[in-house]
Amino acid sequence: MQELFALLHPFKFKHRSLCMPEDPKMKRECYGVFYVTYDLKAEEQTKTWKKMINIAVSGAAGMISNHLLFKLASGEVFGRDQPIALKLLGSERSFQALEGVAMELEDSLYPLLKEVSIGIDPYDVFQDAEWALLIGAKPRGPGMERADLLEINGKIFAEQGKALNAVASAALICLKNAPNIPAKNFHALTRLDENRAKCQLALKAGVFYDKVSNMTIWGNHSTTQVPDFLNGRIDGLPVEEVIKDTKWLEEDFTEKIQKRGGVLIKKWGRSSAASTSVSIVDAIRSLVTPTPEGDWFSSGVFTNGNPYGVAEELVFSMPCRSKGDGDYELVKDVIFDDYLLKRITKAEAELLAEKKCVAHLIGEGIAVCDLPEDTMLPGEM
Amino acid sequence: MQELFALLHPFKFKHRSLCMPEDPKMKRECYGVFYVTYDLKAEEQTKTWKKMINIAVSGAAGMISNHLLFKLASGEVFGRDQPIALKLLGSERSFQALEGVAMELEDSLYPLLKEVSIGIDPYDVFQDAEWALLIGAKPRGPGMERADLLEINGKIFAEQGKALNAVASAALICLKNAPNIPAKNFHALTRLDENRAKCQLALKAGVFYDKVSNMTIWGNHSTTQVPDFLNGRIDGLPVEEVIKDTKWLEEDFTEKIQKRGGVLIKKWGRSSAASTSVSIVDAIRSLVTPTPEGDWFSSGVFTNGNPYGVAEELVFSMPCRSKGDGDYELVKDVIFDDYLLKRITKAEAELLAEKKCVAHLIGEGIAVCDLPEDTMLPGEM
Repeated sequence: MQELFALLHPFKFKHRSLCMPEDPKMKRECYGVFYVTYDLKAEEQTKTWKKMINIAVSGAAGMISNHLLFKLASGEVFGRDQPIALKLLGSERSFQALEGVAMELEDSLYPLLKEVSIGIDPYDVFQDAEWALLIGAKPRGPGMERADLLEINGKIFAEQGKALNAVASAALICLKNAPNIPAKNFHALTRLDENRAKCQLALKAGVFYDKVSNMTIWGNHSTTQVPDFLNGRIDGLPVEEVIKDTKWLEEDFTEKIQKRGGVLIKKWGRSSAASTSVSIVDAIRSLVTPTPEGDWFSSGVFTNGNPYGVAEELVFSMPCRSKGDGDYELVKDVIFDDYLLKRITKAEAELLAEKKCVAHLIGEGIAVCDLPEDTMLPGEM
Repeated sequence: MQELFALLHPFKFKHRSLCMPEDPKMKRECYGVFYVTYDLKAEEQTKTWKKMINIAVSGAAGMISNHLLFKLASGEVFGRDQPIALKLLGSERSFQALEGVAMELEDSLYPLLKEVSIGIDPYDVFQDAEWALLIGAKPRGPGMERADLLEINGKIFAEQGKALNAVASAALICLKNAPNIPAKNFHALTRLDENRAKCQLALKAGVFYDKVSNMTIWGNHSTTQVPDFLNGRIDGLPVEEVIKDTKWLEEDFTEKIQKRGGVLIKKWGRSSAASTSVSIVDAIRSLVTPTPEGDWFSSGVFTNGNPYGVAEELVFSMPCRSKGDGDYELVKDVIFDDYLLKRITKAEAELLAEKKCVAHLIGEGIAVCDLPEDTMLPGEM
């Protein structure tokens, strides 16, 4: 199971204005200046724009969202002709901060941002959402066991999953709690790990990071994650032909990716928000723009039918390609060696153990929580 | 004098790589992956790109910069064909956080971001900078008098002004300490106030904020600022023809803009960073793209030669237009009435009094600090 993030790709729902609900019993209201309704087809400047899409974001008062929402509103994610409605999910405790975020969105005067609504009821906020960005998980506190964290965040995602399923369009628990939404529409973020892996390979090879391609993160967004240097390429060549230091690749490289988050927390006093939000943008763009020929990206997706022999019924990061339609297919031409397989198997074992911990949250009976070791999320101290 | 922000427009300096100084005695080094040097003309993908520009940012470890730097790197400010070098100025105390920012910039894999260097010596960091974004002022602490704040931030800007002048390409103090740089190249930010004013007028008029134009903030980024509803337009019509509530315009409107920052601090627990960085982006874009026909923008600029009768030798926010070449001209066809003139005169009086407070920092003898009242910056409590 991946914490932190999940996204749904576009659903084909009839658009209904969030700000002027057809059913007057619906109490959700647009925030501040966004109470105005817009007929985008009536104006010269906006009549060629696409139909508005609704984007629901949980954890909307948090630090990652504080970067991400402004990127969504600016048009850099979905394009300069895609008007958007933001539906922000907070908690009772964070409601004032959520209002502050909505105020800053007002003050930013983004032309594409036509609606902002805020709320604390996921059933309400996820109504009609074509994309749901679930960023509302809690970070692990000092002295907290990973199993405790799974329990807490599992409940959050279970609730959000149920809400998504009930009224409209987040990892395994969420997916299992939303049986009406195709499992293929759920993604768990490993893109930050992919980006960090590309950067570290570039640094070691002495090239710019845009020369690194075909980078897969296998498995979990945790210390068992597997940055795959066997299939990765630098300037079109296999990584191992450019970086001949096998010890560095097998030992230092993976550790650098895994520990990057922790180093950042020490330097910066809090976990990475800016680069995390950049990676969320990258992840979404990878689904809405065609993948460059010969390349791929990593995403935590449902394992059913995967060609790599990973256990079914898991969410597992694997190499994906997209035609840009919001959908993806798994990459077939990847190779494996003993080292890579051993590492993937370890990641799989962790996810299978985590799954047993949350059995009660995914409708699979009584939880048996016997995690083999207390693995950490990248960034945890 | 405006605190918070100042920018310089492009200078015609010969580009020299910051990462590989010609003079080996120069110790500045690019951070991490950015130590690699790039020949942009050698590659198919980058050979049509513009020549790289150097952007120096002070206060680079702060919250505003944490948003702004990623916007600069993404290409949304200067365009998708403009490679950039970021030169980040921090303090000894903030150096670790500055490293964290540089690490997050690495992890973001921005193709246009070709160089990042970090330092604590303004003379070094401002070397060869075409743009300098001075965001390194301190916010006012509890119980601090405005005069104390002026003294502290005045010294910061005096040092930065001297450094800019000495080696390469910030408000009145900074300008006065950099006599070799044309005064016209200095801008103090009032764009956040302008954006907030547009939003509040739109809210009151029941229209979307893109319908509000010709919005001037006159004067200082403080409570004496004058949001000008006399010259402002909504859907092409004078504001007062659309909003006929004169009491609201004269009393509530201005107060709403002035107090917006304070309300946000209460809601959000800290001052606005995201929307401030959006407004900095807006301010820069207003200088590098042609102003739309008939419209204008506000910027705090040097008053010498202004057609409005504002005292010379001040930095004062006034209506500007640009051809998109980094330069600007003041707008001539604005109208005044008694109410507007009275308000502008009050803002001018405040800035003249502040100037006397910092006389020692601008080479004008001994400071006489007798501020008429303890005015506040928007957002101060």
